[in-house]
Amino acid sequence: MRWNLPVSEMPTTWFNVVPHLSKPLEPPLHPGTRQPLGPEDLSPLFPMALIGQEVTTEPTVEIPGEVIDVLRLWRPTPLVRAVRLEKALGTPARIYFKDESVSPAGSHKPNTAVPQAFYNKAEGVARLTTETGAGQWGSALSFASAIYGLECMVYMVRASYEQKPYRRVLMETWGGRAVPSPVDDPSHPGSLGTAISDAVKDAASRADTHYSLGSVLNHVLLHQTIIGQEAQAQLARAGETRPDVVIGCCGGGSNLGGISLPFVPDGDVRLLAVEPASCPTLTAGKLEYDYGDAAGYAPLLLMYTLGHDFIPPSIHAGGLRYHGDAPIISNLVSTGRMEAVAYPQTKTFDAALTWARSQGTVPAPETGHAIRAVIDEALAAKEAGKEKVILFNYSGHGLLDLSAYDSYLQGELKD
Amino acid sequence: MRWNLPVSEMPTTWFNVVPHLSKPLEPPLHPGTRQPLGPEDLSPLFPMALIGQEVTTEPTVEIPGEVIDVLRLWRPTPLVRAVRLEKALGTPARIYFKDESVSPAGSHKPNTAVPQAFYNKAEGVARLTTETGAGQWGSALSFASAIYGLECMVYMVRASYEQKPYRRVLMETWGGRAVPSPVDDPSHPGSLGTAISDAVKDAASRADTHYSLGSVLNHVLLHQTIIGQEAQAQLARAGETRPDVVIGCCGGGSNLGGISLPFVPDGDVRLLAVEPASCPTLTAGKLEYDYGDAAGYAPLLLMYTLGHDFIPPSIHAGGLRYHGDAPIISNLVSTGRMEAVAYPQTKTFDAALTWARSQGTVPAPETGHAIRAVIDEALAAKEAGKEKVILFNYSGHGLLDLSAYDSYLQGELKD
Repeated sequence: MRWNLPVSEMPTTWFNVVPHLSKPLEPPLHPGTRQPLGPEDLSPLFPMALIGQEVTTEPTVEIPGEVIDVLRLWRPTPLVRAVRLEKALGTPARIYFKDESVSPAGSHKPNTAVPQAFYNKAEGVARLTTETGAGQWGSALSFASAIYGLECMVYMVRASYEQKPYRRVLMETWGGRAVPSPVDDPSHPGSLGTAISDAVKDAASRADTHYSLGSVLNHVLLHQTIIGQEAQAQLARAGETRPDVVIGCCGGGSNLGGISLPFVPDGDVRLLAVEPASCPTLTAGKLEYDYGDAAGYAPLLLMYTLGHDFIPPSIHAGGLRYHGDAPIISNLVSTGRMEAVAYPQTKTFDAALTWARSQGTVPAPETGHAIRAVIDEALAAKEAGKEKVILFNYSGHGLLDLSAYDSYLQGELKD
Repeated sequence: MRWNLPVSEMPTTWFNVVPHLSKPLEPPLHPGTRQPLGPEDLSPLFPMALIGQEVTTEPTVEIPGEVIDVLRLWRPTPLVRAVRLEKALGTPARIYFKDESVSPAGSHKPNTAVPQAFYNKAEGVARLTTETGAGQWGSALSFASAIYGLECMVYMVRASYEQKPYRRVLMETWGGRAVPSPVDDPSHPGSLGTAISDAVKDAASRADTHYSLGSVLNHVLLHQTIIGQEAQAQLARAGETRPDVVIGCCGGGSNLGGISLPFVPDGDVRLLAVEPASCPTLTAGKLEYDYGDAAGYAPLLLMYTLGHDFIPPSIHAGGLRYHGDAPIISNLVSTGRMEAVAYPQTKTFDAALTWARSQGTVPAPETGHAIRAVIDEALAAKEAGKEKVILFNYSGHGLLDLSAYDSYLQGELKD
């Protein structure tokens, strides 16, 4: 069962959670001086519109009409009730999901790539740089750059560049350029840290170029709140008052923030972050100021972190391999407004296979983490003999991750 | 701009074009006796329900409720106006497409895989066999088999099995089993002909097993007419009286038939088939009785054919590499009701790239053929300074065909 929102009812503003936080956010610090950052520190890398959104305390931010026009290529995304999964589990829970896999890049990432490209274009920037691991974010920004006629240069972790050619081809199909990172050491396998360094260095060295980030920052989570706002309108159409729990997987926090932040003001709604046991930032990290990148070039953020030199094992859910978390998500967890749980990857692939064989679609390994928690919540409802309304974010499809499924099916996956 | 049809308005019957043909269809002939086939000849391979649909002259056939329940996992599919492509071309034409890429298997194929699996299950069959080239059909049938709890055995052309592991993994993710064909000669690269032989032989040798075909036959095209019927309802919502032309790519003819057959009775609507210049069945083949497979085990069908021993060059649009065409499509072309055009593959990839960089999604190479013709029709409208309403079938996405895009972008593609 699906609830399609009419295009005319797509939200026209983003939801800002900042006024609803029980504890104020702490400012980012300059990596050199460790003093709070000012707009002038960020302007070589970001357009003023995004810097403004990063610090705004207004309850809503208007979405520009030119951005809405592009988002409408695939939005509003459907809200779907996973009836076949419910039957397979024999649960009294009603399970709903937002299907963000329907975007051109196959995930929620274009929700922020499009406005970021738009604001940069509007301020006269001709070229964007970014980093990418497995390629989800790099392909989303390549797509958005194609739409606005921007050049897009993606520094891709060398190991992924060599092992996962499909996402590179996807970027090139949209006219983006991907190069392996680190650029100055062809024998180095690379990491998100080296790729951020390459991308920031490039952007800082050219007046026509800005840098773009796909998660963690406040303005990125802001852009993603269109997901949760649509879900609220669609749940009402489905006859539900509210979800009992909202679930999303969490790497940097952008898809989780997107679906959950609009529910923060409603204290009757539980919020649940799901992370990999191999990179357990929220469940085992420390809340402290840490660098956003491995090399220490990026600002310090107050967040749950495993340490900026932590190198997560190379699990297949590449999008969840980040040493820190969005300051907003960290804030919510530290105040108890949001819960967090961690799973080893074989358990998440087990859940993903249950999903594929009941609901029919193949989820991204990242999304498999959310599905694992959804199934456990639904089984708990069955155990308790209680109704429960579960909402989660189907953040992306797994069609470019089939080698991971192959490893799992062959019994080669390790936790 | 998109027009979503409410789930409650999904068609509940399939449209049968047979009563609307200006010339009757000729019967299939037995490959041994060359006499018209009877139901008893087909019953070892197909359930009686499908044999009945193959020969029915009723104007509509009811879709079983259990099939509708499953089709609703992704149907109705959106009708979308390709506004950004129109702008990129500067055309006065209005271009609409049905987005069949949103199905779990990423193409229109599940529209028939689901009812075929359902009818076999209903008649007590426990196992299905089929052939697949690049894997689109094999993955669709694996998905449908997972839904109904059937075993699914896919004989996959050995060259594809070895070169394109991703679609094999997709089949296995749904619980299907794929083996390279021919099974008895590991040094043979295989062909659709050898794979059909393996699949038919397997099904004929086991009482619990039937054979399933993904295109060409009347009942397959019948199941696909849900596409064109939905499009008619959605075009009306978009304020269009009728399309001037309906376009689809054509291999066996199932996606083309699906979108175009419901328009056959309206003589003001042009119908256009698009095929590869390297396998020009409709534009350069002969209309005659020929075997459905290379080995001559399958029935003879009256169709445009290049000869059952014709081996098409290995272009990337694997779904269009068939020596013949559906008898219904052949009938429509031979009577002048449908037109046909052929394009070399580089021109279709050029069109696919124009699409990806304006509309944002990456089409299957097969779908790129339809887009090539759409662009040429739109440019002709621009040249003539005339409005025109174009409808085409976006039959599938190209996310598992990115190596083909890589070849094109590297300049390595040959016609």
